[in-house]
Amino acid sequence: MKIAVDAMGGDFGPRVTVAGALRAAQDFGIDVFLVGVERIIKNELEKLHYDRAKCTIVDAPEAISMGEGIFSLRRKAKSSIRVGAQLVKDKLADGFVSTGNTAAVVYISRKVIGALQGVERPALALLVPTLRGMSLLIDVGASVDCRPGHLEQFAVMGRVFMESVLGLENPRIGLMSIGEEESKGNDLTREAYERLENSSLHFIGNVEGKDIYSGKADVIVCDGFTGNVVLKVSEGVVEALFHWARREVTRNLLAKVGFFLMKRNLKRLYKKVDYAEYGGAQLLGINGVCIIGHGRSNPQAVRSAVRMARDFVVHRVQERIQAEMAKLGGATHGAKA
Amino acid sequence: MKIAVDAMGGDFGPRVTVAGALRAAQDFGIDVFLVGVERIIKNELEKLHYDRAKCTIVDAPEAISMGEGIFSLRRKAKSSIRVGAQLVKDKLADGFVSTGNTAAVVYISRKVIGALQGVERPALALLVPTLRGMSLLIDVGASVDCRPGHLEQFAVMGRVFMESVLGLENPRIGLMSIGEEESKGNDLTREAYERLENSSLHFIGNVEGKDIYSGKADVIVCDGFTGNVVLKVSEGVVEALFHWARREVTRNLLAKVGFFLMKRNLKRLYKKVDYAEYGGAQLLGINGVCIIGHGRSNPQAVRSAVRMARDFVVHRVQERIQAEMAKLGGATHGAKA
Repeated sequence: MKIAVDAMGGDFGPRVTVAGALRAAQDFGIDVFLVGVERIIKNELEKLHYDRAKCTIVDAPEAISMGEGIFSLRRKAKSSIRVGAQLVKDKLADGFVSTGNTAAVVYISRKVIGALQGVERPALALLVPTLRGMSLLIDVGASVDCRPGHLEQFAVMGRVFMESVLGLENPRIGLMSIGEEESKGNDLTREAYERLENSSLHFIGNVEGKDIYSGKADVIVCDGFTGNVVLKVSEGVVEALFHWARREVTRNLLAKVGFFLMKRNLKRLYKKVDYAEYGGAQLLGINGVCIIGHGRSNPQAVRSAVRMARDFVVHRVQERIQAEMAKLGGATHGAKA
Repeated sequence: MKIAVDAMGGDFGPRVTVAGALRAAQDFGIDVFLVGVERIIKNELEKLHYDRAKCTIVDAPEAISMGEGIFSLRRKAKSSIRVGAQLVKDKLADGFVSTGNTAAVVYISRKVIGALQGVERPALALLVPTLRGMSLLIDVGASVDCRPGHLEQFAVMGRVFMESVLGLENPRIGLMSIGEEESKGNDLTREAYERLENSSLHFIGNVEGKDIYSGKADVIVCDGFTGNVVLKVSEGVVEALFHWARREVTRNLLAKVGFFLMKRNLKRLYKKVDYAEYGGAQLLGINGVCIIGHGRSNPQAVRSAVRMARDFVVHRVQERIQAEMAKLGGATHGAKA
């Protein structure tokens, strides 16, 4: 199996991505393509011990910055993201992993690799930690303006993911809304509710923001705008809380001592909720495997992202999605863009 | 000044609301109407010392439960929420405070009291704690399906609130979106961005979920669906974090000791982020003062909500909003529902 890794991605670039990719190659016995500026990657490789046979550099001299717009992306044919996606398109790689600009990876992967037949909109899925384990939030930012049929497709894709990768049979599907009753929500969620209720999915109704981390549903469906807001608000709350906690601690000596004694536990807690640790989001509904890691990913997280790509290939997730979409067939008629 | 308090509202009913209303009456020198089932309110009053001259019971024998739908609300002419709103409509009370079912209070207040001239949609505003102080999130659930012109009106209402109640001159207005660049977001936010940029407001651009609690903007504008999701997700994250922290603590003795030493500080931290403490959300854009407290409000929070109602009356917030809307005039043309 061959996985292409965007060596230029992430906040720390090749220093982290190359190390992570090599670890994955070694630990999971797969081959990796390191895609990016050859000279820089070589430089990183020289610092590390690795199996040369399992690692190939693919030159991609153009860089894409974290804030780059769609127009400039179109012109860059030699960016590491585009070259990596092209490797998947040409079946030279089985999957692509990037910790680069999420919007750019989604946009380019969709253009280059293309959508699966029957999928109206791709969706970015992310596993989030809950009090009971992990739940899948879908979409977290690939498709921001959605229609009810799109949300139904997201639900189906989420089910396939949870069943095939996590081995969770008939996962509970929840619809992200602002009240438990069917009548609550906006126009989009009310119509999506009806569709989901009439589907063959294990639909458990609306879930509210406060239910996400309680693990009430295994798959939580929403449009990409809402999902992205959920993610970033969660991040903001965690950061603010830890900030306030530190401020509280400096108020008196007892608290300082207490904080010191709890430090290891608090660190573990922070790691638990820091989604840079989780190896990334999965782009579902395109005709190939694409995993997008957090920009803050460390080598360990890059390794996890490569493992996730491998799992996608092994479990043929995208093929299963395609098959489910064919079954859905007429059901999404009317959701055409 | 006379403030009507929905005595039947909240998770704990008259036991909490009556105590809170009486405290407010005493501390702020205002008169209160206690609206609800006379017998039950009398019962509560008997347990308390209070100034009988400052406190009048208004009988409203029908109850509205927390999950009640719109259809059953229409039939109930004698609910405490309807009677309270009617007191404002009839100018017998200067403002209304309820800790009842938020959707019911919004719906009934809007119907009974009516919208301010020029206001297309009412908005529920909530002050949230940030690292720098407090920011206003508007709308948090009154109007879920919005058009760009509505968001512009929310921004104007938010500015009036921050200027008149908090004395903050020309507050920084941010638009809740999923990326800082103008091009990021969904159709609604992109159009709203353009409107806000061309307005006379101090518009600082898009803010992301992670910026809410950093205090980047003084007023954060969004549709009611998104705002409500933000609120409930925040609540969920706080609950999950405290839950995980407790779990971590039981792992070893040092952490237990540390937790014990930090207990007072953690409690204060929890209070800081627990929005039941903040005296409630403000319904802006209707022709009268209406404050909606959290269902979990304690007497202190009810007292704060009554004080907020008083501040609204003193600062003539709704009148100022009306004046600003007249100035906005043609600008929202095209936002008509």
